[in-house]
Amino acid sequence: MAPATVSNLSCGFDVIGLALCEPFDTVELELTLTGRVEIMAVSGCNTISRDPGKNVAGAVLKAIADAVGNNTGFRITIEKGIRPGSGIGSSGASAAAAAFAANQLLGGVFSMNETVRFAMEGERLASGAPHADNVTPALFGGITLVRSYEPLDIIPLNVPSELRCVVIHPETEIKTSVARGILDREIPLATAVRQWGNLAGLVAGLYREDYDLIGRSIVDFVAEPRRAGLIRGFTGLRSAALACGALGAGISGSGPSVFALCRGSETASAVLKGMSDAMQAEGIAFDAYLSPVSTAGARLI
Amino acid sequence: MAPATVSNLSCGFDVIGLALCEPFDTVELELTLTGRVEIMAVSGCNTISRDPGKNVAGAVLKAIADAVGNNTGFRITIEKGIRPGSGIGSSGASAAAAAFAANQLLGGVFSMNETVRFAMEGERLASGAPHADNVTPALFGGITLVRSYEPLDIIPLNVPSELRCVVIHPETEIKTSVARGILDREIPLATAVRQWGNLAGLVAGLYREDYDLIGRSIVDFVAEPRRAGLIRGFTGLRSAALACGALGAGISGSGPSVFALCRGSETASAVLKGMSDAMQAEGIAFDAYLSPVSTAGARLI
Repeated sequence: MAPATVSNLSCGFDVIGLALCEPFDTVELELTLTGRVEIMAVSGCNTISRDPGKNVAGAVLKAIADAVGNNTGFRITIEKGIRPGSGIGSSGASAAAAAFAANQLLGGVFSMNETVRFAMEGERLASGAPHADNVTPALFGGITLVRSYEPLDIIPLNVPSELRCVVIHPETEIKTSVARGILDREIPLATAVRQWGNLAGLVAGLYREDYDLIGRSIVDFVAEPRRAGLIRGFTGLRSAALACGALGAGISGSGPSVFALCRGSETASAVLKGMSDAMQAEGIAFDAYLSPVSTAGARLI
Repeated sequence: MAPATVSNLSCGFDVIGLALCEPFDTVELELTLTGRVEIMAVSGCNTISRDPGKNVAGAVLKAIADAVGNNTGFRITIEKGIRPGSGIGSSGASAAAAAFAANQLLGGVFSMNETVRFAMEGERLASGAPHADNVTPALFGGITLVRSYEPLDIIPLNVPSELRCVVIHPETEIKTSVARGILDREIPLATAVRQWGNLAGLVAGLYREDYDLIGRSIVDFVAEPRRAGLIRGFTGLRSAALACGALGAGISGSGPSVFALCRGSETASAVLKGMSDAMQAEGIAFDAYLSPVSTAGARLI
């Protein structure tokens, strides 16, 4: 299995991701000598292709089979616990689960970075951009920084023990490719400075276990101003989270899910309720999750 | 006194600064009831105005006197140990020394943030931009993050104990206003992502005391490509630093000084020699400094 993930955390566009404990995707994988990737079944979601060339896990396994050679093949069964297009790393979790399981079957021949590279092939298929900010925490758990893509440089960050994450997934789908397309290709230097000041503050806050600093830093001057309009009820959700004591709140990945970081389970429960009430008041169907940060990431179950 | 500072550290444009132990500026300050700021003498530099309206320390003291009211005035003597236009926070040190000394004389009535705000008035005079990335470490020592300017939010970062800084100041002057003017007002989002990935890596490296990560993160995709051409011999200096074992190297502030971060005094000495040799080979006059990070910042001597 590999868990859902919240990428960006508002200020860390394309570089930061956080692993949840739930929801998660599960795969059952068999090593074959057919030289082919076969998708036996997909449960939990009826919109996902069983064509290995159009399936995220299929793309990952194809890349791995090609790298190993010797007629290596895979037979996979996928159980989707995370809805596609939710903004909490649905494709990333399937990609991470497939890459992790394949590496296990192959005796762990691939390094951490190689495994990420394979999982990124799933993201390439899903969104056109082989980003790593979801697959990395889905694979390794915790809160991770992708410092650099070339060369790939992944840094696990400190996770304050009382940190809790609330996620509200409104039942609308936003394609990552659409959410990426509406972003400005260039941003004012002054805006970039504000954004990286916050990202540096977030990283410092995680290490200092300074929850208020984490909260002050979870502000997005780059993507949220463009994407918030795609998410019905976003402003109300964010306000409800902050009113109930969340440290900060923003768009999870490219949306439509909205996350809130909280200190402690009690506050997180209140935030979950407040955000759920806001959704109900707007008459929008939604899923809701409250989770600590997963320390494990992908694992055998 | 208040020490020289290295701002930006390549990836942290306008938000990060590091305090050196030397060089430093010294001021002697007297509280008066004249309602005026008087500059009695400036030593160590003959290009600095004694007109309080055109002097960095004068601008700071004027702002403080106005804030206090009641005919508060100051008489100041300034000893410049840091050359103006060097890129190691010359104006910032004078501003910080004046703000610190005035606050001492006034019994410490001003908070940390208020003191920074007053010192920023000196930067406003010097460069037109009231930035805080030099005055903050000059005031408080260490490595500091200016997470946000509005509201002002200053975060002291962890300083790994073996960190050493080498600074080469070639004898040319670059006005901060000129160095700022040649920057692009807009930058590609992809470039911003690379920059903030590095800044997040630097902050994580400081907390993890991971010297290699610090070195990998000290890369500048925003200012250095524009400014390097202003600094004769920059490429050679940077190469020499890395060849001698520096973790990373780049432009200090807006230049022309070039800094290198090193692990341990022995490596730093080798880097100092290598960079000095590179300058001599180019026939460029220079000053050179090797310093741990100052933990004190501005203080009474």
